[in-house]
Amino acid sequence: MAERRKIINDPVYGFITIDHPLVFKVISHPYYQRLRRIQQMAFAHLVYPGAVHSRLHHSLGAYHLMCNALQELKSKGVAITPEEELSAKIAILLHDIGHGPFSHALEHTLIEGVHHESISLQIMQLLNKENEGALDMAIQIFNNTYEKPFLHQLVSGQLDVDRMDYLTRDSFFTGVSEGVIGYDRIIKMLTVKDGELMVEEKGIFSIEKFLVARRLMYWQVYLHKTVLGAEKMLVNSIRRAKYLLQSGTNLPIPSPVLELFLNQQTPLPLEGDRLDAFCQLDDYDLMAAVKIWSHHPDKVLSTLCRMLINRKLLKVKLQAEPMEPASVAAIRQNLLQQTGFSEAELDYFVFSGETSNTTYDPREERIRILFKNGTVRDISEVDNALIQHNLSRPIKKYYFCYLDPGSAT
Amino acid sequence: MAERRKIINDPVYGFITIDHPLVFKVISHPYYQRLRRIQQMAFAHLVYPGAVHSRLHHSLGAYHLMCNALQELKSKGVAITPEEELSAKIAILLHDIGHGPFSHALEHTLIEGVHHESISLQIMQLLNKENEGALDMAIQIFNNTYEKPFLHQLVSGQLDVDRMDYLTRDSFFTGVSEGVIGYDRIIKMLTVKDGELMVEEKGIFSIEKFLVARRLMYWQVYLHKTVLGAEKMLVNSIRRAKYLLQSGTNLPIPSPVLELFLNQQTPLPLEGDRLDAFCQLDDYDLMAAVKIWSHHPDKVLSTLCRMLINRKLLKVKLQAEPMEPASVAAIRQNLLQQTGFSEAELDYFVFSGETSNTTYDPREERIRILFKNGTVRDISEVDNALIQHNLSRPIKKYYFCYLDPGSAT
Amino acid sequence: MAERRKIINDPVYGFITIDHPLVFKVISHPYYQRLRRIQQMAFAHLVYPGAVHSRLHHSLGAYHLMCNALQELKSKGVAITPEEELSAKIAILLHDIGHGPFSHALEHTLIEGVHHESISLQIMQLLNKENEGALDMAIQIFNNTYEKPFLHQLVSGQLDVDRMDYLTRDSFFTGVSEGVIGYDRIIKMLTVKDGELMVEEKGIFSIEKFLVARRLMYWQVYLHKTVLGAEKMLVNSIRRAKYLLQSGTNLPIPSPVLELFLNQQTPLPLEGDRLDAFCQLDDYDLMAAVKIWSHHPDKVLSTLCRMLINRKLLKVKLQAEPMEPASVAAIRQNLLQQTGFSEAELDYFVFSGETSNTTYDPREERIRILFKNGTVRDISEVDNALIQHNLSRPIKKYYFCYLDPGSAT
Amino acid sequence: MAERRKIINDPVYGFITIDHPLVFKVISHPYYQRLRRIQQMAFAHLVYPGAVHSRLHHSLGAYHLMCNALQELKSKGVAITPEEELSAKIAILLHDIGHGPFSHALEHTLIEGVHHESISLQIMQLLNKENEGALDMAIQIFNNTYEKPFLHQLVSGQLDVDRMDYLTRDSFFTGVSEGVIGYDRIIKMLTVKDGELMVEEKGIFSIEKFLVARRLMYWQVYLHKTVLGAEKMLVNSIRRAKYLLQSGTNLPIPSPVLELFLNQQTPLPLEGDRLDAFCQLDDYDLMAAVKIWSHHPDKVLSTLCRMLINRKLLKVKLQAEPMEPASVAAIRQNLLQQTGFSEAELDYFVFSGETSNTTYDPREERIRILFKNGTVRDISEVDNALIQHNLSRPIKKYYFCYLDPGSAT
Repeated sequence: MAERRKIINDPVYGFITIDHPLVFKVISHPYYQRLRRIQQMAFAHLVYPGAVHSRLHHSLGAYHLMCNALQELKSKGVAITPEEELSAKIAILLHDIGHGPFSHALEHTLIEGVHHESISLQIMQLLNKENEGALDMAIQIFNNTYEKPFLHQLVSGQLDVDRMDYLTRDSFFTGVSEGVIGYDRIIKMLTVKDGELMVEEKGIFSIEKFLVARRLMYWQVYLHKTVLGAEKMLVNSIRRAKYLLQSGTNLPIPSPVLELFLNQQTPLPLEGDRLDAFCQLDDYDLMAAVKIWSHHPDKVLSTLCRMLINRKLLKVKLQAEPMEPASVAAIRQNLLQQTGFSEAELDYFVFSGETSNTTYDPREERIRILFKNGTVRDISEVDNALIQHNLSRPIKKYYFCYLDPGSAT
Repeated sequence: MAERRKIINDPVYGFITIDHPLVFKVISHPYYQRLRRIQQMAFAHLVYPGAVHSRLHHSLGAYHLMCNALQELKSKGVAITPEEELSAKIAILLHDIGHGPFSHALEHTLIEGVHHESISLQIMQLLNKENEGALDMAIQIFNNTYEKPFLHQLVSGQLDVDRMDYLTRDSFFTGVSEGVIGYDRIIKMLTVKDGELMVEEKGIFSIEKFLVARRLMYWQVYLHKTVLGAEKMLVNSIRRAKYLLQSGTNLPIPSPVLELFLNQQTPLPLEGDRLDAFCQLDDYDLMAAVKIWSHHPDKVLSTLCRMLINRKLLKVKLQAEPMEPASVAAIRQNLLQQTGFSEAELDYFVFSGETSNTTYDPREERIRILFKNGTVRDISEVDNALIQHNLSRPIKKYYFCYLDPGSAT
Repeated sequence: MAERRKIINDPVYGFITIDHPLVFKVISHPYYQRLRRIQQMAFAHLVYPGAVHSRLHHSLGAYHLMCNALQELKSKGVAITPEEELSAKIAILLHDIGHGPFSHALEHTLIEGVHHESISLQIMQLLNKENEGALDMAIQIFNNTYEKPFLHQLVSGQLDVDRMDYLTRDSFFTGVSEGVIGYDRIIKMLTVKDGELMVEEKGIFSIEKFLVARRLMYWQVYLHKTVLGAEKMLVNSIRRAKYLLQSGTNLPIPSPVLELFLNQQTPLPLEGDRLDAFCQLDDYDLMAAVKIWSHHPDKVLSTLCRMLINRKLLKVKLQAEPMEPASVAAIRQNLLQQTGFSEAELDYFVFSGETSNTTYDPREERIRILFKNGTVRDISEVDNALIQHNLSRPIKKYYFCYLDPGSAT
Repeated sequence: MAERRKIINDPVYGFITIDHPLVFKVISHPYYQRLRRIQQMAFAHLVYPGAVHSRLHHSLGAYHLMCNALQELKSKGVAITPEEELSAKIAILLHDIGHGPFSHALEHTLIEGVHHESISLQIMQLLNKENEGALDMAIQIFNNTYEKPFLHQLVSGQLDVDRMDYLTRDSFFTGVSEGVIGYDRIIKMLTVKDGELMVEEKGIFSIEKFLVARRLMYWQVYLHKTVLGAEKMLVNSIRRAKYLLQSGTNLPIPSPVLELFLNQQTPLPLEGDRLDAFCQLDDYDLMAAVKIWSHHPDKVLSTLCRMLINRKLLKVKLQAEPMEPASVAAIRQNLLQQTGFSEAELDYFVFSGETSNTTYDPREERIRILFKNGTVRDISEVDNALIQHNLSRPIKKYYFCYLDPGSAT
């Protein structure tokens, strides 16, 4: 493993510097390299063609912001030892290591009952064993058992470098310039009091801007109706494939590791061989399957897959109120006649649900402002706050996806 | 097909506007959508992690610049009919439609004996048939049989919108800011005289800058030794897979269309089913194969594939002179002992070759400068030219790739 | 006057195109060229050194956005005649022509009782006479008497191109990247219904972002306490100079046009010679005076001017509550002893006041959202609005400026 | 003087950090603050309206790059003491302190016989005295008598941070994006061998790009014919004013310090009061004079000044060959009749000269490339050099400025 400094070009931050052997070792590990093959934004590129960056790229970016934030805090006199610094960097590098194919889109579909963060923890423990305990403190920081809570808050909190990077990076690659946040100014405004991460008073407006940018990115990008629809189509393809396998239908699966998870009938702990298989699974396994299945005799599966491949997507309505049952019934009736699908099959092509996003919930998340006079207040409680209590209720939207008969041919 | 205007976010140019039904139809076609699944820069992302943009994105970008260039020329009084305008836009949208998986990296390996431009032409003809001749003029512009040569020169020439977009886009996504060119200024300086594309006198420095940026991008990015080495490893994996198939070894291939080409022993015309299969082939077929093969019993194939997947690459030297035969022999000798590979097998892991790039060859390529007094001169012949005759010789470099014994394990 | 097209480089938008003889004529006029010599952001450069751009630059930028907005509306089928288009462009070019030196900072100090917008109107009328009525419609659009209100709303309204440009440009030149707004997206979302300017439903988040960016720019930049303090120092210098002139003190004034206004005892209509003089007045007259006065025997005047020149500014507190009278008295008492100034003189160096900014007041300003179903609602009344009624109250802050005894020496 | 860290927003680099009391002291000094009132690019804003940034801003930017460069060299193991680091920063902050109004445009006109660098040295010595020798080492670095030549080379050499900043900054503010250089990459490629500044082998293309960008900026911006013409008009205004003063004409001068230099008949050493006056002189003195003089009875002076103020400039031809004497004579003859100027007076309005720029002269300037094998070669002598010997000849161009009779009215 290289001992010397390495510089990586990043279109977002210019250069990212790697200068510690353990960081090199983590980045060079096949588990980490797998993140190259998982797109950060799943199907967002169907609407925003530039949004094809990888989880590896995001995690390097978050690492870079962590380096800057630690540097800033140290320059303000916050005590951070070299081991803590290294461990916080390792923790952020690995915070997303447990993501499966298509990131959030397939979470709970392919591997049921496990959150990606707990998989991250399991993989960190594997790496820790390989490195004879060198990741002990990184793991403590990651699962918030380390004695300096601000280090965990930098990894995972309302104002963590994860969010700062993904908002910055996703807005960069989508071209949605309005998602831009002042990450460098926010970092310069960070401080620590009583072990907790805080923001200096004069950073209030930057934080407001950060929360508004996040709100915008959710509704304009992450929950964009077309993206949402495509992700549901992938979920339905997997569900159909599992159903066909269960009912004994012959189904080619182009990847043994994918096969393992498709054939798994009930949620099982992700251990041993299954964890090992997970660490090989990526977008390529899924898309190769979707491509093959687009020629499968099962019309439900092949239609879903062909539509995904050719970007002939389901129509999607995203609105403040659920669809009228009568309209839904009319649409289904029409499709039953036109497509030849059965009622049960049609459920793969006509369905509804809800999605939501909260601008800022001061009960669970906290952004604390440290005033010059030493008092601390939540961002939602400062004078003339933009971020108010009525923003703490989740905004719910109802989606309704349905087949446009012309697209299924 | 939508009739109305559509706006696509592009991080490079802001917004790209689609406003003609035929353009919609072309973009919505599965042949075009396939370009989503082919990375523009193949393995460049192994060095520049942001370089994961697709051929579809590049071709939309080139289309955008074409729109601007035609607008500019019309505002200068160049006669361009609406049909010519539409056809030039279609021609540039489809100029790369014939690219196979991993773009240039696998050209002549997977499909032998056919250049991607002639495949583009074949696919354009398929689309033309589907659209009852609506692409006639686009095809004439593409293969330079249309009566106004400047339209072809905008699609494919020394200063075409293809190059302007790929230099701009590749430098954007890699973060190599020095590859930036003044595409907007160059477009504002374009003009037409006697049917030929020219550059106004005051654009000379922008053109110099363009050529120097291209020179830099070639040596710093496109021919980066690590990228070059990874691409050769993919080529060798395909060669090995073909060899194993020919010698009757059992080899899983996760995609029927890929299987077709791997089993093809001799170059065959790309027609009928084979052309149809080609139009379904993309990076996912290849990477899914590489992933499976990384577990194959053939140690040559599995080693190459595993190294690619895990980014444990061959060592590469790229230099002005070929390696000394004695050094090569010593390295081979050492590897023979350490790896257990045979001499023939070692050829997949130790090999050399040459690569070259020409900054500007005035004999084949021409950038004509139109002076205020009406005279025309080649950019290499203006006063105090930066672009001189000694830049017209190709710069050759010699690469030498070899296995680092530690990476193969 | 040039007939041909001219292209102006703009670091913010790339290129600005001028292509009509009347626009050329207006831009070439000495009245317009005077705007080169008035800084858009007055003393903001004392905090943000890049903020030295001119009113001329801003007005060219607003003109550019007007061109884009009109183009967009026409492409959506809004009826706009060529004369209306030209007139709207002239109106925006000239909207700020009535600004005096140091923009808003000296408004109502040097020329009392006249708002810069009414001066703009007077100058437009002068230009209209010179051009034999060619500006008739531009003037109607400017003072909102033209029959299509949306044209006036583009020049002056809650979402006008003036605000879009100054937020964009000021955030660009200050480097406060958080002030960036999605001007291009907002323009793409503009539409007209019943003659009124509206925003399409899907532009809601961009508008929220715009209002939050404006809020941030006000508190972080325009009302920055140091900038505010410096502007008050300039106002006090002028007040002192006027006082000295009135009391018969000899005072060199390096510019005859400045002399005219300093000697004016009572508000007089800005007509004839006085209007002509105003059209020659710019930042250079003021700063040349400040420089000379920094050596004047009157200690109040010379101290204020020297402090401004050398950036040894007054201390400023900007806070939610007014200063305690007791603290003010203590500071004054201390300064009386240390500086030798009289009570009356001290008023130039110790003073307080209030400033305020409203994020969005739906009663006076209106941003109307046009929903897909044809209904129209104010941005503050849409579902889950970020922009709420409690943001319609002005936020007041109290400033207190005082001399740091060390700075006056 | 503040003890704590201060952060300055810069639109070019994001944030510039000041963290040493002596740096604060230098920046707060009136001599340094004067640079706020001197535009970096003189009259370039007449063509590029954004180019209004100040010398103070440039010098802060160069300081920022110096911080980065020193940081980079230290991380590569180059020995640099804290005192050397501080001194190099002070040296670059003050490298341009000796510039007079309108930067290069008036050099040798207002103050004859003294180069701005020797004035910088004098002012540094004044500041050194005020600070009791704290600037001793900075002065040694500035005048290249310090024992580590690379420190001087960073301040003033072919690849110094001065050039890197002005190319970057000027291209940013003009919007000429093609002048962009990869300053951050160049800095990462800097190294020191035998006490001399060098560039690592893999930085060759970035250096080529730097030299080509500089070539472009010279011809497109710095020597733009309109800018050049305006600067000559200012020079001629000063010359005329001096002539009038010498011949006893009454001439108002709005600034005592300007008066001192205008009345100076012969070159005198810049010492004592004259040096003190120089340290108060800035663009405002000059422009205030130009404004007043635009109403002066002397028609030569008032015409020149009025044309400058109103941007009705001389026509300028800039070409490879000098004008034909016959054409010049014809133009003069025509103007003699139309304007009523005498032959001698006409010399202020019709004149010619030459200007030149060298892309790279390896004899005087040196950019040394350090190869991996330890050899050192000049950039013009590497294999396949773009920067060749025929680029070492200066490119000469001939300008011819003349009055357009319509502009003088």
